[in-house]
Amino acid sequence: MIIGFIGFGKVSRTLLKLISSKDVKFITSMEGRSAETQNSIKNENIEVLDTFKQVAIKSDILISATSPKSAPDVALKYGRYAQGIYLDLNNISPDTTDEIGKTVKNLVDGAIIGKIDSDNPVMYISGKKADELLFLNEFITVKKISDNVGDVSILKMLRSTYTKSLSALLIESFEISKTYGLEDEFFDILALTEGDEFRQKSLSRISNTLNSSKRKSEELEEIIEFFNKNDLVMVKAALEKLSR
Amino acid sequence: MIIGFIGFGKVSRTLLKLISSKDVKFITSMEGRSAETQNSIKNENIEVLDTFKQVAIKSDILISATSPKSAPDVALKYGRYAQGIYLDLNNISPDTTDEIGKTVKNLVDGAIIGKIDSDNPVMYISGKKADELLFLNEFITVKKISDNVGDVSILKMLRSTYTKSLSALLIESFEISKTYGLEDEFFDILALTEGDEFRQKSLSRISNTLNSSKRKSEELEEIIEFFNKNDLVMVKAALEKLSR
Repeated sequence: MIIGFIGFGKVSRTLLKLISSKDVKFITSMEGRSAETQNSIKNENIEVLDTFKQVAIKSDILISATSPKSAPDVALKYGRYAQGIYLDLNNISPDTTDEIGKTVKNLVDGAIIGKIDSDNPVMYISGKKADELLFLNEFITVKKISDNVGDVSILKMLRSTYTKSLSALLIESFEISKTYGLEDEFFDILALTEGDEFRQKSLSRISNTLNSSKRKSEELEEIIEFFNKNDLVMVKAALEKLSR
Repeated sequence: MIIGFIGFGKVSRTLLKLISSKDVKFITSMEGRSAETQNSIKNENIEVLDTFKQVAIKSDILISATSPKSAPDVALKYGRYAQGIYLDLNNISPDTTDEIGKTVKNLVDGAIIGKIDSDNPVMYISGKKADELLFLNEFITVKKISDNVGDVSILKMLRSTYTKSLSALLIESFEISKTYGLEDEFFDILALTEGDEFRQKSLSRISNTLNSSKRKSEELEEIIEFFNKNDLVMVKAALEKLSR
Protein backbone atom coordinates (compact mmCIF):
# COMPACT_ATOMS: atom_id res chain seq x y z
CA MET A 1 0.00 0.00 0.00
CA ILE A 2 1.48 3.32 -1.08
CA ILE A 3 0.20 6.65 0.23
CA GLY A 4 1.33 9.75 -1.66
CA PHE A 5 1.22 13.31 -0.38
CA ILE A 6 0.81 16.50 -2.36
CA GLY A 7 1.40 19.25 0.14
CA PHE A 8 3.53 18.71 3.19
CA GLY A 9 2.11 20.87 5.94
CA LYS A 10 0.87 19.94 9.37
CA VAL A 11 -1.88 17.64 8.10
CA SER A 12 0.47 15.51 5.97
CA ARG A 13 3.18 15.40 8.62
CA THR A 14 0.70 14.35 11.31
CA LEU A 15 -0.86 11.64 9.15
CA LEU A 16 2.63 10.35 8.39
CA LYS A 17 3.20 10.02 12.12
CA LEU A 18 -0.19 8.51 12.94
CA ILE A 19 -0.26 5.91 10.16
CA SER A 20 2.68 3.87 11.29
CA SER A 21 2.45 0.46 9.67
CA LYS A 22 4.87 -1.91 7.98
CA ASP A 23 2.36 -2.34 5.20
CA VAL A 24 2.26 1.32 4.24
CA LYS A 25 4.91 3.15 2.26
CA PHE A 26 4.83 6.95 1.92
CA ILE A 27 5.92 8.99 -1.07
CA THR A 28 6.00 12.66 -2.02
CA SER A 29 8.04 15.04 -4.18
CA MET A 30 10.05 18.21 -3.66
CA GLU A 31 9.17 19.46 -7.13
CA GLY A 32 8.83 23.24 -6.94
CA ARG A 33 8.66 23.28 -3.12
CA SER A 34 10.22 25.87 -0.83
CA ALA A 35 13.52 25.22 0.93
CA GLU A 36 11.59 25.06 4.21
CA THR A 37 9.24 22.35 2.95
CA GLN A 38 12.17 20.45 1.44
CA ASN A 39 13.90 20.47 4.81
CA SER A 40 10.85 19.24 6.63
CA ILE A 41 10.49 16.42 4.07
CA LYS A 42 14.14 15.39 4.56
CA ASN A 43 13.52 14.87 8.25
CA GLU A 44 10.74 12.36 7.67
CA ASN A 45 10.62 8.70 6.77
CA ILE A 46 9.22 9.20 3.28
CA GLU A 47 10.45 8.39 -0.21
CA VAL A 48 10.97 11.40 -2.47
CA LEU A 49 10.18 11.12 -6.19
CA ASP A 50 11.21 13.58 -8.87
CA THR A 51 7.75 14.81 -9.81
CA PHE A 52 4.24 14.94 -8.38
CA LYS A 53 3.06 13.26 -11.57
CA GLN A 54 5.11 10.22 -10.55
CA VAL A 55 3.68 10.45 -7.03
CA ALA A 56 0.16 10.49 -8.46
CA ILE A 57 0.81 7.50 -10.73
CA LYS A 58 2.41 5.34 -8.03
CA SER A 59 0.00 6.05 -5.13
CA ASP A 60 -2.80 3.75 -4.06
CA ILE A 61 -4.08 6.68 -2.04
CA LEU A 62 -3.13 10.16 -3.18
CA ILE A 63 -3.69 12.78 -0.51
CA SER A 64 -4.06 16.42 -1.49
CA ALA A 65 -3.42 18.57 1.57
CA THR A 66 -2.17 21.89 0.27
CA SER A 67 -4.38 24.97 0.61
CA PRO A 68 -7.98 25.79 -0.31
CA LYS A 69 -6.69 28.10 -3.01
CA SER A 70 -4.39 25.64 -4.78
CA ALA A 71 -6.59 22.56 -4.30
CA PRO A 72 -8.39 22.89 -7.68
CA ASP A 73 -5.09 23.38 -9.56
CA VAL A 74 -3.50 20.39 -7.89
CA ALA A 75 -6.53 18.28 -8.76
CA LEU A 76 -6.52 19.48 -12.35
CA LYS A 77 -2.80 18.86 -12.80
CA TYR A 78 -2.34 15.53 -11.03
CA GLY A 79 -5.81 14.10 -10.42
CA ARG A 80 -6.02 12.44 -13.81
CA TYR A 81 -2.85 10.40 -13.14
CA ALA A 82 -4.21 9.00 -9.88
CA GLN A 83 -4.80 5.27 -10.34
CA GLY A 84 -6.26 4.71 -6.88
CA ILE A 85 -8.16 6.97 -4.50
CA TYR A 86 -7.77 10.75 -4.56
CA LEU A 87 -8.40 12.04 -1.04
CA ASP A 88 -8.87 15.80 -0.91
CA LEU A 89 -8.32 17.09 2.64
CA ASN A 90 -8.24 20.79 1.81
CA ASN A 91 -10.75 23.12 3.36
CA ILE A 92 -12.73 23.64 0.18
CA SER A 93 -16.35 24.56 -0.48
CA PRO A 94 -18.95 22.09 -1.77
CA ASP A 95 -18.85 23.86 -5.15
CA THR A 96 -15.09 23.45 -5.44
CA THR A 97 -15.44 19.80 -4.43
CA ASP A 98 -18.01 19.38 -7.19
CA GLU A 99 -15.64 21.03 -9.65
CA ILE A 100 -12.80 18.72 -8.68
CA GLY A 101 -15.11 15.69 -8.93
CA LYS A 102 -15.50 16.44 -12.64
CA THR A 103 -11.82 15.84 -13.40
CA VAL A 104 -10.83 13.35 -10.70
CA LYS A 105 -12.21 9.83 -10.98
CA ASN A 106 -12.01 8.26 -7.53
CA LEU A 107 -12.45 11.36 -5.45
CA VAL A 108 -13.03 11.08 -1.74
CA ASP A 109 -14.06 14.24 0.04
CA GLY A 110 -12.35 14.56 3.40
CA ALA A 111 -12.00 16.88 6.39
CA ILE A 112 -10.18 16.67 9.63
CA ILE A 113 -12.16 18.09 12.54
CA GLY A 114 -10.52 19.19 15.71
CA LYS A 115 -6.88 20.13 15.70
CA ILE A 116 -4.96 17.61 13.65
CA ASP A 117 -2.24 17.45 16.30
CA SER A 118 -4.71 17.09 19.19
CA ASP A 119 -5.37 13.88 21.10
CA ASN A 120 -8.22 12.74 18.98
CA PRO A 121 -8.67 14.30 15.56
CA VAL A 122 -11.50 12.83 13.48
CA MET A 123 -11.35 12.39 9.73
CA TYR A 124 -14.71 12.66 7.96
CA ILE A 125 -14.94 11.16 4.48
CA SER A 126 -17.56 10.76 1.77
CA GLY A 127 -17.58 9.26 -1.68
CA LYS A 128 -18.11 5.90 -3.38
CA LYS A 129 -14.56 4.83 -2.55
CA ALA A 130 -14.71 6.03 1.06
CA ASP A 131 -15.18 2.47 2.35
CA GLU A 132 -11.72 1.60 1.15
CA LEU A 133 -10.27 4.19 3.53
CA LEU A 134 -11.93 2.82 6.65
CA PHE A 135 -8.84 0.67 7.35
CA LEU A 136 -7.24 3.97 8.50
CA ASN A 137 -9.39 3.67 11.64
CA GLU A 138 -6.52 1.69 13.02
CA PHE A 139 -4.53 4.95 13.17
CA ILE A 140 -7.00 7.82 13.29
CA THR A 141 -10.78 7.95 13.91
CA VAL A 142 -12.39 7.89 10.47
CA LYS A 143 -16.11 8.48 9.92
CA LYS A 144 -17.78 7.83 6.61
CA ILE A 145 -20.70 10.20 6.00
CA SER A 146 -22.11 8.82 2.76
CA ASP A 147 -21.32 7.71 -0.79
CA ASN A 148 -21.85 11.25 -2.07
CA VAL A 149 -18.74 13.24 -2.81
CA GLY A 150 -19.44 16.72 -1.42
CA ASP A 151 -21.35 15.70 1.69
CA VAL A 152 -18.29 16.26 3.86
CA SER A 153 -17.83 19.73 2.38
CA ILE A 154 -21.46 20.53 3.09
CA LEU A 155 -21.13 19.21 6.62
CA LYS A 156 -18.03 21.35 7.13
CA MET A 157 -20.01 24.34 5.92
CA LEU A 158 -22.90 23.54 8.27
CA ARG A 159 -20.42 23.40 11.11
CA SER A 160 -18.97 26.70 10.01
CA THR A 161 -22.44 28.26 9.78
CA TYR A 162 -22.94 27.49 13.44
CA THR A 163 -19.49 28.32 14.81
CA LYS A 164 -19.06 31.60 12.92
CA SER A 165 -22.53 32.87 13.82
CA LEU A 166 -21.92 31.81 17.40
CA SER A 167 -18.76 33.92 17.45
CA ALA A 168 -20.72 36.91 16.18
CA LEU A 169 -23.27 36.35 18.94
CA LEU A 170 -20.52 36.10 21.54
CA ILE A 171 -19.00 39.36 20.30
CA GLU A 172 -22.35 41.12 20.58
CA SER A 173 -23.23 39.72 24.04
CA PHE A 174 -19.75 40.46 25.35
CA GLU A 175 -19.96 44.05 24.07
CA ILE A 176 -23.25 44.63 25.85
CA SER A 177 -21.92 43.04 29.06
CA LYS A 178 -18.95 45.40 28.98
CA THR A 179 -21.26 48.41 28.79
CA TYR A 180 -22.53 47.42 32.22
CA GLY A 181 -19.16 46.27 33.59
CA LEU A 182 -20.64 42.80 33.95
CA GLU A 183 -18.48 40.85 31.49
CA ASP A 184 -16.91 38.59 34.11
CA GLU A 185 -20.27 37.85 35.64
CA PHE A 186 -21.68 37.21 32.15
CA PHE A 187 -19.16 34.39 31.61
CA ASP A 188 -19.63 33.07 35.15
CA ILE A 189 -23.38 32.86 34.93
CA LEU A 190 -23.29 31.12 31.58
CA ALA A 191 -20.60 28.69 32.68
CA LEU A 192 -23.20 27.25 35.08
CA THR A 193 -25.17 25.86 32.15
CA GLU A 194 -22.66 25.93 29.26
CA GLY A 195 -19.76 24.23 31.04
CA ASP A 196 -16.66 25.28 32.92
CA GLU A 197 -14.70 26.06 29.77
CA PHE A 198 -17.24 28.60 28.54
CA ARG A 199 -15.20 31.69 29.40
CA GLN A 200 -11.92 30.53 27.94
CA LYS A 201 -13.52 29.04 24.81
CA SER A 202 -15.64 32.15 24.21
CA LEU A 203 -12.80 34.61 24.68
CA SER A 204 -10.66 32.65 22.26
CA ARG A 205 -13.54 32.56 19.73
CA ILE A 206 -14.05 36.29 20.09
CA SER A 207 -10.39 37.17 19.58
CA ASN A 208 -9.89 34.68 16.73
CA THR A 209 -12.86 36.15 14.94
CA LEU A 210 -11.90 39.78 15.51
CA ASN A 211 -8.31 39.06 14.45
CA SER A 212 -9.37 37.57 11.13
CA SER A 213 -12.71 39.21 10.58
CA LYS A 214 -12.04 39.79 6.88
CA ARG A 215 -11.45 36.09 6.21
CA LYS A 216 -14.38 35.07 8.42
CA SER A 217 -16.61 37.52 6.54
CA GLU A 218 -15.55 36.02 3.23
CA GLU A 219 -16.34 32.56 4.54
CA LEU A 220 -19.74 33.76 5.71
CA GLU A 221 -20.39 35.21 2.25
CA GLU A 222 -19.58 31.81 0.73
CA ILE A 223 -21.94 30.13 3.19
CA ILE A 224 -24.75 32.57 2.38
CA GLU A 225 -24.27 32.03 -1.33
CA PHE A 226 -24.19 28.26 -1.05
CA PHE A 227 -27.21 27.92 1.25
CA ASN A 228 -29.16 30.63 -0.59
CA LYS A 229 -32.28 28.45 -0.93
CA ASN A 230 -32.58 28.29 2.87
CA ASP A 231 -34.03 30.85 5.25
CA LEU A 232 -30.91 32.67 6.40
CA VAL A 233 -31.44 35.23 9.12
CA MET A 234 -28.81 34.49 11.76
CA VAL A 235 -25.97 33.90 9.30
CA LYS A 236 -26.69 37.11 7.45
CA ALA A 237 -26.76 38.95 10.77
CA ALA A 238 -23.39 37.38 11.65
CA LEU A 239 -21.92 38.75 8.42
CA GLU A 240 -23.36 42.18 9.20
CA LYS A 241 -21.97 42.00 12.72
CA LEU A 242 -18.48 41.15 11.53
CA SER A 243 -18.46 43.91 8.94
CA ARG A 244 -18.95 46.57 11.66
CA MET B 1 -34.39 34.70 62.18
CA ILE B 2 -37.73 34.63 60.38
CA ILE B 3 -38.03 34.08 56.64
CA GLY B 4 -41.39 34.85 55.08
CA PHE B 5 -42.64 33.70 51.70
CA ILE B 6 -45.04 35.41 49.36
CA GLY B 7 -45.74 32.86 46.66
CA PHE B 8 -45.42 29.16 47.35
CA GLY B 9 -44.28 27.58 44.12
CA LYS B 10 -41.25 25.44 43.39
CA VAL B 11 -38.73 28.15 44.34
CA SER B 12 -40.23 28.72 47.80
CA ARG B 13 -40.73 25.02 48.48
CA THR B 14 -37.16 24.20 47.47
CA LEU B 15 -35.66 27.01 49.57
CA LEU B 16 -37.72 25.77 52.52
CA LYS B 17 -36.11 22.35 52.06
CA LEU B 18 -32.58 23.64 51.49
CA ILE B 19 -32.47 26.10 54.39
CA SER B 20 -32.83 23.62 57.20
CA SER B 21 -31.59 25.27 60.36
CA LYS B 22 -32.79 25.41 63.96
CA ASP B 23 -32.21 29.15 63.87
CA VAL B 24 -34.59 29.84 61.01
CA LYS B 25 -38.36 29.92 61.26
CA PHE B 26 -40.54 30.08 58.14
CA ILE B 27 -43.84 31.88 57.76
CA THR B 28 -46.36 32.44 54.98
CA SER B 29 -50.09 32.98 54.52
CA MET B 30 -52.93 31.26 52.68
CA GLU B 31 -54.72 34.58 52.18
CA GLY B 32 -56.45 34.41 48.80
CA ARG B 33 -54.49 31.34 47.65
CA SER B 34 -55.86 28.43 45.63
CA ALA B 35 -56.89 25.16 47.28
CA GLU B 36 -53.90 23.52 45.64
CA THR B 37 -51.42 26.01 47.09
CA GLN B 38 -53.12 25.75 50.49
CA ASN B 39 -52.66 21.98 50.39
CA SER B 40 -49.01 22.22 49.49
CA ILE B 41 -48.49 24.69 52.37
CA LYS B 42 -50.20 22.32 54.83
CA ASN B 43 -47.68 19.61 53.98
CA GLU B 44 -44.70 21.77 54.90
CA ASN B 45 -43.08 22.75 58.15
CA ILE B 46 -44.09 26.41 57.99
CA GLU B 47 -46.20 28.67 60.19
CA VAL B 48 -49.30 30.10 58.52
CA LEU B 49 -50.41 33.65 59.37
CA ASP B 50 -53.76 35.17 58.51
CA THR B 51 -52.53 37.81 56.09
CA PHE B 52 -49.48 38.58 53.93
CA LYS B 53 -49.33 41.97 55.62
CA GLN B 54 -48.58 40.13 58.88
CA VAL B 55 -45.99 37.97 57.05
CA ALA B 56 -44.30 41.13 55.74
CA ILE B 57 -44.23 42.79 59.15
CA LYS B 58 -42.85 39.78 60.98
CA SER B 59 -40.17 38.68 58.47
CA ASP B 60 -36.47 39.44 58.77
CA ILE B 61 -36.21 38.33 55.18
CA LEU B 62 -39.32 38.59 53.02
CA ILE B 63 -39.04 36.54 49.84
CA SER B 64 -41.26 37.39 46.87
CA ALA B 65 -41.36 34.37 44.56
CA THR B 66 -44.66 34.60 42.74
CA SER B 67 -44.65 35.40 39.02
CA PRO B 68 -43.08 38.13 36.86
CA LYS B 69 -46.56 39.54 36.27
CA SER B 70 -47.65 39.84 39.89
CA ALA B 71 -44.23 40.82 41.28
CA PRO B 72 -44.83 44.63 41.06
CA ASP B 73 -48.27 44.31 42.73
CA VAL B 74 -46.90 42.19 45.54
CA ALA B 75 -44.10 44.70 46.09
CA LEU B 76 -46.53 47.62 46.08
CA LYS B 77 -48.96 45.94 48.47
CA TYR B 78 -46.59 44.38 51.00
CA GLY B 79 -43.15 45.88 50.39
CA ARG B 80 -43.75 48.91 52.59
CA TYR B 81 -44.49 46.66 55.61
CA ALA B 82 -41.21 44.77 55.27
CA GLN B 83 -38.99 45.66 58.23
CA GLY B 84 -35.99 43.64 57.07
CA ILE B 85 -34.77 42.63 53.64
CA TYR B 86 -37.12 42.28 50.69
CA LEU B 87 -35.68 39.63 48.35
CA ASP B 88 -37.34 39.61 44.95
CA LEU B 89 -36.69 36.30 43.18
CA ASN B 90 -39.17 36.77 40.36
CA ASN B 91 -37.96 36.73 36.77
CA ILE B 92 -38.45 40.46 36.26
CA SER B 93 -36.78 42.96 33.94
CA PRO B 94 -34.29 45.60 35.11
CA ASP B 95 -36.97 48.26 34.57
CA THR B 96 -39.45 46.44 36.80
CA THR B 97 -36.74 45.96 39.39
CA ASP B 98 -36.11 49.71 39.28
CA GLU B 99 -39.81 50.35 39.69
CA ILE B 100 -40.02 48.07 42.72
CA GLY B 101 -36.93 49.71 44.22
CA LYS B 102 -38.88 52.96 44.41
CA THR B 103 -41.45 51.58 46.85
CA VAL B 104 -39.44 48.92 48.70
CA LYS B 105 -36.73 50.08 51.06
CA ASN B 106 -34.31 47.20 51.55
CA LEU B 107 -34.69 45.57 48.17
CA VAL B 108 -32.31 42.82 47.13
CA ASP B 109 -32.48 41.77 43.52
CA GLY B 110 -32.19 38.00 43.15
CA ALA B 111 -32.23 35.23 40.59
CA ILE B 112 -31.79 31.52 40.77
CA ILE B 113 -29.80 30.13 37.86
CA GLY B 114 -30.00 26.52 36.88
CA LYS B 115 -33.01 24.48 37.84
CA ILE B 116 -33.90 25.26 41.42
CA ASP B 117 -34.41 21.54 42.14
CA SER B 118 -31.12 20.52 40.50
CA ASP B 119 -27.99 19.47 42.35
CA ASN B 120 -26.45 22.87 42.50
CA PRO B 121 -28.64 25.88 41.89
CA VAL B 122 -26.93 29.23 42.33
CA MET B 123 -28.60 32.30 43.75
CA TYR B 124 -27.32 35.62 42.42
CA ILE B 125 -28.05 38.70 44.49
CA SER B 126 -27.35 42.42 44.30
CA GLY B 127 -28.19 45.39 46.47
CA LYS B 128 -26.85 47.25 49.48
CA LYS B 129 -28.30 44.64 51.86
CA ALA B 130 -27.07 41.67 49.81
CA ASP B 131 -24.19 41.03 52.23
CA GLU B 132 -26.67 40.15 54.94
CA LEU B 133 -27.92 37.26 52.82
CA LEU B 134 -24.53 35.65 52.35
CA PHE B 135 -25.11 33.47 55.41
CA LEU B 136 -27.44 31.46 53.11
CA ASN B 137 -24.29 30.06 51.50
CA GLU B 138 -24.49 27.41 54.15
CA PHE B 139 -27.55 26.01 52.36
CA ILE B 140 -27.36 27.15 48.71
CA THR B 141 -24.57 28.71 46.65
CA VAL B 142 -25.09 32.47 46.84
CA LYS B 143 -23.13 34.96 44.73
CA LYS B 144 -23.25 38.66 45.36
CA ILE B 145 -22.83 40.67 42.16
CA SER B 146 -22.71 44.23 43.50
CA ASP B 147 -24.38 46.78 45.74
CA ASN B 148 -26.56 47.99 42.88
CA VAL B 149 -30.11 46.77 42.88
CA GLY B 150 -30.84 45.85 39.27
CA ASP B 151 -27.48 44.34 38.39
CA VAL B 152 -28.82 40.82 38.78
CA SER B 153 -31.74 41.64 36.50
CA ILE B 154 -29.35 43.03 33.91
CA LEU B 155 -27.14 39.97 34.21
CA LYS B 156 -30.17 37.72 33.77
CA MET B 157 -31.04 39.69 30.66
CA LEU B 158 -27.48 39.37 29.31
CA ARG B 159 -27.71 35.63 29.86
CA SER B 160 -31.05 35.59 28.09
CA THR B 161 -29.65 37.61 25.18
CA TYR B 162 -27.12 34.88 24.61
CA THR B 163 -29.26 31.80 25.20
CA LYS B 164 -32.26 32.98 23.18
CA SER B 165 -30.16 34.08 20.21
CA LEU B 166 -28.27 30.80 20.42
CA SER B 167 -31.56 28.92 20.19
CA ALA B 168 -32.48 30.90 17.08
CA LEU B 169 -29.09 30.04 15.58
CA LEU B 170 -29.59 26.36 16.42
CA ILE B 171 -33.01 26.42 14.77
CA GLU B 172 -31.55 27.93 11.61
CA SER B 173 -28.53 25.59 11.43
CA PHE B 174 -30.68 22.55 12.15
CA GLU B 175 -33.14 23.54 9.39
CA ILE B 176 -30.34 23.83 6.84
CA SER B 177 -28.85 20.51 7.95
CA LYS B 178 -32.22 18.82 7.45
CA THR B 179 -32.39 20.10 3.87
CA TYR B 180 -29.33 17.97 3.17
CA GLY B 181 -30.34 15.04 5.40
CA LEU B 182 -27.25 15.73 7.48
CA GLU B 183 -28.84 16.71 10.80
CA ASP B 184 -27.42 13.76 12.74
CA GLU B 185 -23.97 14.37 11.32
CA PHE B 186 -24.32 18.09 12.12
CA PHE B 187 -24.75 17.30 15.82
CA ASP B 188 -22.00 14.66 15.74
CA ILE B 189 -19.42 16.90 14.15
CA LEU B 190 -20.13 19.75 16.56
CA ALA B 191 -20.11 17.47 19.59
CA LEU B 192 -16.39 16.98 18.88
CA THR B 193 -15.68 20.57 19.87
CA GLU B 194 -18.83 21.59 21.80
CA GLY B 195 -19.02 18.61 24.14
CA ASP B 196 -20.82 15.28 24.27
CA GLU B 197 -24.10 16.80 25.39
CA PHE B 198 -24.36 19.09 22.39
CA ARG B 199 -27.04 17.11 20.55
CA GLN B 200 -29.33 16.57 23.50
CA LYS B 201 -28.93 20.13 24.81
CA SER B 202 -29.47 21.65 21.36
CA LEU B 203 -32.53 19.58 20.55
CA SER B 204 -34.07 20.53 23.86
CA ARG B 205 -33.29 24.21 23.23
CA ILE B 206 -34.81 24.01 19.76
CA SER B 207 -38.03 22.37 20.94
CA ASN B 208 -38.39 24.60 24.00
CA THR B 209 -38.02 27.66 21.82
CA LEU B 210 -40.39 26.48 19.11
CA ASN B 211 -42.97 25.43 21.72
CA SER B 212 -43.03 28.85 23.33
CA SER B 213 -41.90 31.06 20.49
CA LYS B 214 -44.47 33.74 21.32
CA ARG B 215 -43.18 34.17 24.87
CA LYS B 216 -39.55 33.99 23.72
CA SER B 217 -40.27 36.66 21.11
CA GLU B 218 -41.77 38.92 23.76
CA GLU B 219 -38.70 38.43 25.93
CA LEU B 220 -36.46 39.26 22.98
CA GLU B 221 -38.50 42.43 22.38
CA GLU B 222 -37.92 43.41 26.01
CA ILE B 223 -34.19 42.76 25.61
CA ILE B 224 -34.01 44.85 22.44
CA GLU B 225 -35.84 47.69 24.13
CA PHE B 226 -33.69 47.60 27.25
CA PHE B 227 -30.34 47.36 25.45
CA ASN B 228 -31.38 49.84 22.74
CA LYS B 229 -28.23 51.93 23.15
CA ASN B 230 -26.08 48.95 22.12
CA ASP B 231 -25.34 47.64 18.65
CA LEU B 232 -27.92 44.88 18.33
CA VAL B 233 -27.64 42.75 15.21
CA MET B 234 -27.75 39.16 16.39
CA VAL B 235 -30.55 39.68 18.92
CA LYS B 236 -32.72 41.45 16.36
CA ALA B 237 -32.08 38.63 13.93
CA ALA B 238 -33.09 36.14 16.61
CA LEU B 239 -36.40 37.94 17.04
CA GLU B 240 -36.94 37.93 13.27
CA LYS B 241 -36.09 34.23 13.15
CA LEU B 242 -38.59 33.35 15.88
CA SER B 243 -41.36 35.36 14.26
CA ARG B 244 -41.20 33.20 11.12
